[in-house]
Amino acid sequence: MMTTRDSTRHAVVLLSGGLDSATALACAIRDGFFCHALTFRYGQRHECEIEAAKNVARSLGLENRHRIVGLDPQLFVGSALTGAEPVPLHRDVSRHDQIPPTYVPARNTVFLALALALAEQIGASDIYIGANAVDFSGYPDCRPEFIAAFERLADLGTKAGAQGHSFSVHAPLIRLTKVQIIQLGQRLGVDYALTWSCYNPQPGNRPCGACDSCQIRKQAFQQAGSRDPLNY
Amino acid sequence: MMTTRDSTRHAVVLLSGGLDSATALACAIRDGFFCHALTFRYGQRHECEIEAAKNVARSLGLENRHRIVGLDPQLFVGSALTGAEPVPLHRDVSRHDQIPPTYVPARNTVFLALALALAEQIGASDIYIGANAVDFSGYPDCRPEFIAAFERLADLGTKAGAQGHSFSVHAPLIRLTKVQIIQLGQRLGVDYALTWSCYNPQPGNRPCGACDSCQIRKQAFQQAGSRDPLNY
Repeated sequence: MMTTRDSTRHAVVLLSGGLDSATALACAIRDGFFCHALTFRYGQRHECEIEAAKNVARSLGLENRHRIVGLDPQLFVGSALTGAEPVPLHRDVSRHDQIPPTYVPARNTVFLALALALAEQIGASDIYIGANAVDFSGYPDCRPEFIAAFERLADLGTKAGAQGHSFSVHAPLIRLTKVQIIQLGQRLGVDYALTWSCYNPQPGNRPCGACDSCQIRKQAFQQAGSRDPLNY
Repeated sequence: MMTTRDSTRHAVVLLSGGLDSATALACAIRDGFFCHALTFRYGQRHECEIEAAKNVARSLGLENRHRIVGLDPQLFVGSALTGAEPVPLHRDVSRHDQIPPTYVPARNTVFLALALALAEQIGASDIYIGANAVDFSGYPDCRPEFIAAFERLADLGTKAGAQGHSFSVHAPLIRLTKVQIIQLGQRLGVDYALTWSCYNPQPGNRPCGACDSCQIRKQAFQQAGSRDPLNY
């Protein structure tokens, strides 16, 4: 049990407000880290995600250790998620050979870089990200080899790394299916009613049920034998 | 000679307003790229740097292709450059075995990540950075191995990379001394009167002449046999 400040292991956790990052945060807490959540506002279509991130952080005791950082949206145009193109509905989400139109250019590279800057400042050697290579294998920056390449970069590109510290990027969900992620989160006490997955919110902040993300989420809850707490 | 849009090779150039990045921009132009400059406002102590970047971009014909992007300063506390600690004066800049107090946590990782996001959006495969491993060898994120690790990350973490494009991060100054950088820039027509190097500006926007950066700059102009156009 860690009681003194000095022995505390700090981690920065990327928290989008979605199902995956909420589960990744619960994993970081389970692993014994004193967690600092980091959420970006970068021209997502909707504030629902940010609100969900706040609610998730609060529910896991991080309300005073949750930073919401604005990123200039002009850096992330060109994706359906930032409004440049329509969000595709009823797409065949079982096809893993294509990069989804919701891909945001270099997003995880940028997010991990900013998490690294924060980690180095606060003396954390660990970063958690909810990247997942199974249900969204079309995203290049969710692959294990990308995560490994970032760890190498972090050690080379920081003062801490140059002084012999080694950064770890934990992607505890990377090889799990969405069903397994939900089952893991349920065991860890994640309240999925607080999370937000939809790319295309409807009036009254209801999820659409038809975008990639809603389809995958709904199917996964069904397969996990439980009910999605969101109202579609 | 490239005349059509399709054959144009685009490059993103990180431009701080300093001597090195101005020279790197001139190199990118020399190399035949259609350049897009990217400057960050991230809690630097002074606006002089941003103004210098604008003037340099304008002088090289990029006024319409120069983005100035705000970055939340809370991500970069803990450095003398962002106001957390005093800028050291009269430090022995010939010692290369120490990381300078002006190191900003993970700065080049963040800057390159954001440059990559922009590059992918505009269809550029090339990024230029004025990193230099000689006069500032204390900065871990100015080393050739760091640059190489970022190139690998870029290919793994982007749609373009996954589709077989390869990103190049050019650091044309990385093995040059400051004297060689100045001589190169002078051959390429860089107007160093527009650049800004000082960490500690004096009233009337005059450089202090005593911080690491001023010391290195002044010495280099002397050794290059020319006069620094700035008034100390």
